[in-house]
Amino acid sequence: MAAWGERLAGVRGVLLDISGVLYDSGEGGGVPIAGSVEAVARLKRSRLKVRFCTNESQKSRGHLVGLLRHLGYDISEGEVTAPAPAACLILRERGLRPHLLVHDGVRSEFAQVDTSNPNCVVIADAGESFSYQNMNKAFQVLMELENPVLISLGRGRYYKETSGLMLDVGAYTKALEYACGIKAEVVGKPSPEFFKSALQQMGVEAHQAVMIGDDIVGDVGGAQRCGMRALQVRTGKFRIVANLIEMRSYWSRVSL
Amino acid sequence: MAAWGERLAGVRGVLLDISGVLYDSGEGGGVPIAGSVEAVARLKRSRLKVRFCTNESQKSRGHLVGLLRHLGYDISEGEVTAPAPAACLILRERGLRPHLLVHDGVRSEFAQVDTSNPNCVVIADAGESFSYQNMNKAFQVLMELENPVLISLGRGRYYKETSGLMLDVGAYTKALEYACGIKAEVVGKPSPEFFKSALQQMGVEAHQAVMIGDDIVGDVGGAQRCGMRALQVRTGKFRIVANLIEMRSYWSRVSL
Repeated sequence: MAAWGERLAGVRGVLLDISGVLYDSGEGGGVPIAGSVEAVARLKRSRLKVRFCTNESQKSRGHLVGLLRHLGYDISEGEVTAPAPAACLILRERGLRPHLLVHDGVRSEFAQVDTSNPNCVVIADAGESFSYQNMNKAFQVLMELENPVLISLGRGRYYKETSGLMLDVGAYTKALEYACGIKAEVVGKPSPEFFKSALQQMGVEAHQAVMIGDDIVGDVGGAQRCGMRALQVRTGKFRIVANLIEMRSYWSRVSL
Repeated sequence: MAAWGERLAGVRGVLLDISGVLYDSGEGGGVPIAGSVEAVARLKRSRLKVRFCTNESQKSRGHLVGLLRHLGYDISEGEVTAPAPAACLILRERGLRPHLLVHDGVRSEFAQVDTSNPNCVVIADAGESFSYQNMNKAFQVLMELENPVLISLGRGRYYKETSGLMLDVGAYTKALEYACGIKAEVVGKPSPEFFKSALQQMGVEAHQAVMIGDDIVGDVGGAQRCGMRALQVRTGKFRIVANLIEMRSYWSRVSL
């Protein structure tokens, strides 16, 4: 394996996943992953540009940033690329009026969107709001459309909370895809458009950027397909899945 | 198209789907589909053997039969092939102890099954019990197993109730399959084993039997793959999907 310096040569910008990389979400706001608060501070002091690239779709950016700042992170709302605002742009561009199958915590991101007489469904990580009734309503809306459009904020299978693994939006998107015989459009990682918008916002080319995440598909694979470099941390869902015994993250090794 | 007499030559037994064919389930027990009570009575008076082959997994056979008898159908519990008892046989044969993600209405079918320290998950049409919490629990049980086994009572996408189309177990099975990266074992139509057990119980060979259902995949395709003939009625989900204007069923045409 090449040395860190060599592998990261020419890097000008760092994209950081949030959940499972900076912190584990959960009751009471979640807990930071050891070393990550300091790592973000160190990155911010470095010559590198930093941006946070998350598939978080249960909370608004404002709520998420407030929570992270409370945990000690140096982060502001303008530094976050998240799927809900990206979806709003798409809805506006295409004249789509969504039925929202989302968590109440992210609803404010859609405040400016016309949701009357829906001609599509937007599904996000709705958590407890993934009741049978809510899923069935979204299903019925789609079945009544001549050209059903389902926009999914991510395709994650699950994420890690402090209490354990939790089903993510991707599982419920699969359910609606199967029931309706359709294919969802994904807004969020690993969609290339999503990574590209994050790079644009950071003002860095793909070959000059590295994505740091815990998801081999959504973070690492997606970023690499866009021409970026990628690092998978051994925290978050990686840790659970690989069933690692040693509690350790890559954070301590990354010195930029 | 060949005449009915010709197409049904040599038929000795009839397998009837229930939901969407005999009746539409729903609030207050559901409503019979016009002509079906009389059609069942006529079949029972004929020289043909009759068996009911359903993927109903929200109600026990006892409950289902009670409901149908109340609506006027000549039907007894011993005439019904349903996935829950078929699943119980499999669980016993393989020493599996299920975590049950099922509707309370069908739980009695599993009364004799050991559910301690689960080593598999059984998923059925749980209806309102498909809460996020219950889905997540089933997901966590599967993720903790070295060899996760998911047994699904059917693979239906949706069914028709009097109030409209309803998400069926297949959608939720897809969600768990995707989240866990596994493939479910299906007990129920269109599984060949399920059709074969119905034929055995009826004492009729596949080439001597006709399946009557409203689902082109679960009923018609599945039966045909087993060497049976099949008729698709234009009621139940067929009607909704094809968006037929004329309210009419094949029942009036089938004279056996």
